[in-house]
Amino acid sequence: MEKLVECVPNFSEGRRADVIEAIVGEIRKIDGVKLLDVKPDASHNRTVVTFVGEPQAAKQAAFSACKKAAELIDMEKHQGEHPRIGATDVIPFVPVRGVTMEECVQLANELGQEIAEKLEIPVYLYEAAAKMPSRVKLPDIRKGEYEGLKQDITKPERHPDYGPPRMHPTAGATVVGARQFLIAFNINLGTSDVTIAKKIANAIREARGGYKYCRAIGVMLEDRNIAQVSINMVDYTGTPLYRVFETVKSEAARYGVNVVGSEIIGMVPLQALLDVAEFYLRLEGFERKQVFEENL
Amino acid sequence: MEKLVECVPNFSEGRRADVIEAIVGEIRKIDGVKLLDVKPDASHNRTVVTFVGEPQAAKQAAFSACKKAAELIDMEKHQGEHPRIGATDVIPFVPVRGVTMEECVQLANELGQEIAEKLEIPVYLYEAAAKMPSRVKLPDIRKGEYEGLKQDITKPERHPDYGPPRMHPTAGATVVGARQFLIAFNINLGTSDVTIAKKIANAIREARGGYKYCRAIGVMLEDRNIAQVSINMVDYTGTPLYRVFETVKSEAARYGVNVVGSEIIGMVPLQALLDVAEFYLRLEGFERKQVFEENL
Repeated sequence: MEKLVECVPNFSEGRRADVIEAIVGEIRKIDGVKLLDVKPDASHNRTVVTFVGEPQAAKQAAFSACKKAAELIDMEKHQGEHPRIGATDVIPFVPVRGVTMEECVQLANELGQEIAEKLEIPVYLYEAAAKMPSRVKLPDIRKGEYEGLKQDITKPERHPDYGPPRMHPTAGATVVGARQFLIAFNINLGTSDVTIAKKIANAIREARGGYKYCRAIGVMLEDRNIAQVSINMVDYTGTPLYRVFETVKSEAARYGVNVVGSEIIGMVPLQALLDVAEFYLRLEGFERKQVFEENL
Repeated sequence: MEKLVECVPNFSEGRRADVIEAIVGEIRKIDGVKLLDVKPDASHNRTVVTFVGEPQAAKQAAFSACKKAAELIDMEKHQGEHPRIGATDVIPFVPVRGVTMEECVQLANELGQEIAEKLEIPVYLYEAAAKMPSRVKLPDIRKGEYEGLKQDITKPERHPDYGPPRMHPTAGATVVGARQFLIAFNINLGTSDVTIAKKIANAIREARGGYKYCRAIGVMLEDRNIAQVSINMVDYTGTPLYRVFETVKSEAARYGVNVVGSEIIGMVPLQALLDVAEFYLRLEGFERKQVFEENL
C-alpha cells in the first residue's frame, strides 16, 4: 500500500476566483496527488485547500502552489479577518497511511528549505516540526501578523528557521509543519445550563489540567436549547475520543446531567473510530487488516 | 463508486494443488474481480475461495470456476469430512458496497439458471435467495450429502430450483445463494464456569428466543481457563454487535461475572464497527463519507 500524507495549505486569498483556481491548478497538475477540498472564505479572505498524496508528490504540489501564490498575492494589499503572515500562510502535513509523524516532520523540513532557497520566503516550522518550544503553536508564530512580523523579523528571537531574516516583498512569510489530524467533536448535554458545559470543558482541556490533546469550550445550542461541550481533538492517537467521551459523561453525571448525543463535524480518520469500537467491545488482538474493506 | 459483491465459493477439492490452481485460475482471468483468499483444507478435502468484484464480473468468475470444477472433480470418488453435494458445493454472494441484498438474490438466480442450463448441474437456491422455507438453511439442502441426494433428487420435494431432477454424473449438484457477511464474534468471560457461558449463549441465540441473527454456543478456553460465548453474527445489519455485547454483559452480571474481552475472528465489514462507534458515542447525524479514508 502506498504511503499517504494529507496536506492542508492555507492561502491568503478568498475572493478572486481566478487566483484561487490558478493556485489550486498547480496542485491538480501533480501526479500522485488527489485534491479533496477547496474552501474559499471571502470575509477571512483566505482559502483552505485539502489534498492527499504520496509524500514527495505532496511536497512538490505544496511547493508549486506556494510559488504560484507568491506570484499572485501581494500581502501589502491583503486584508481579511483571519490572522496571517504570508501569501501561503501555513502548510501542515498530516500522516494518513504508512507514514510516521517523524516522516512528516522531515517532509516539512525539506519543503521549508526549498521554499526558503528557491523563493526567498522566510519559513517558520510549527507543531511537531517546531525547532523551539515558542514556535509549537501557530498563534505564537503569527504574533503581530504580516504587518508586525515585517518589523520584528530582524530581531534574533524572530528570525525564521529557514531563509533570510526579512519578509518576501509580496509573499511575506510562511509557516510549514506537521501535525495530527484534527477532529471536531462536540458532546451535547441534557441541560440548558451552559455553565455546566463550561465547567466540563475546563475539566477536560489541557490548559486547565485536562487531557493533553484536548481543546474545549462550553457553548449554548440556542436552537435546541441545550448546552454543548465543543471539542477539538488535536491528536486522537494521544487522547482518544472514547476517553474524553467517558470523562464528559462522568463529569456531567456529577451535575445530574446526561449526555444526549455527540457530533463529529467534518472528517475523522478511520482509526479514530476503530479505536472507539475496540475500546467499547473490549477487543483482544484486533488488527486493522481484519476490516474487510482494507483488503480491496 | 463501483458496485461490489463478495463471492465465497466452496469447492470439493482440498488436496490436489493443480486442480485447486486450475479452478482459481478461472477466477483470476476475469477483469473486474479481485481474488482475496484461497483456503484449501486437506481433511475436509475442500477449498474455500474468497473474491470480490463488480456483480456481473463476479457472476462470470463464479460460473467459469464452477465449469472448471465440474471438469476436474469427480464426486463419485470424493471423500472428506465436510458435508457436500457437489464439485462446486456452494456459491454465496454477499453485498459489499452499493449493492442491495435483493440485487444479490437476483445475481444468484441468474447464476443458478446459467449453471443449470449450460452445465446441466441441478441448482438449489439458499438463504436470502431461497424459494421455499425448507431451503433457507444449507444443512437442510445438503441432507444425505452427495450420496443421499443422488437417490432423493427424483422426489418432488427435493427437485432442484433450476436444472434437471438428476445429479450431474461427476459434478453432483450446487447450492447458490445470497447472504449477509458472517462475523465470528467471541466474548470472553471472567469465569472458568462454562455453564454460565452456555446459559448466556442460550439467552442471545435465535433458536432459544434470543436475537434473530445470532448463533451462539458456550465453550471453554482451556489454555486460559475461562469460558467463552462463541457467536456467529449472521446479519449485523439486523442484529448489531453492540446490542449482543451489551446483552452478554448484562446477562453475565446476573451471575456476578465480568466480560473480560472479545475477539473478532477473521474479517469484519467496516460498517459493523462504525455502527459500534456510533452507538457508544451516541453520534448524531453521522455519515460514512465523514470517514476520511472513504474519500481517497
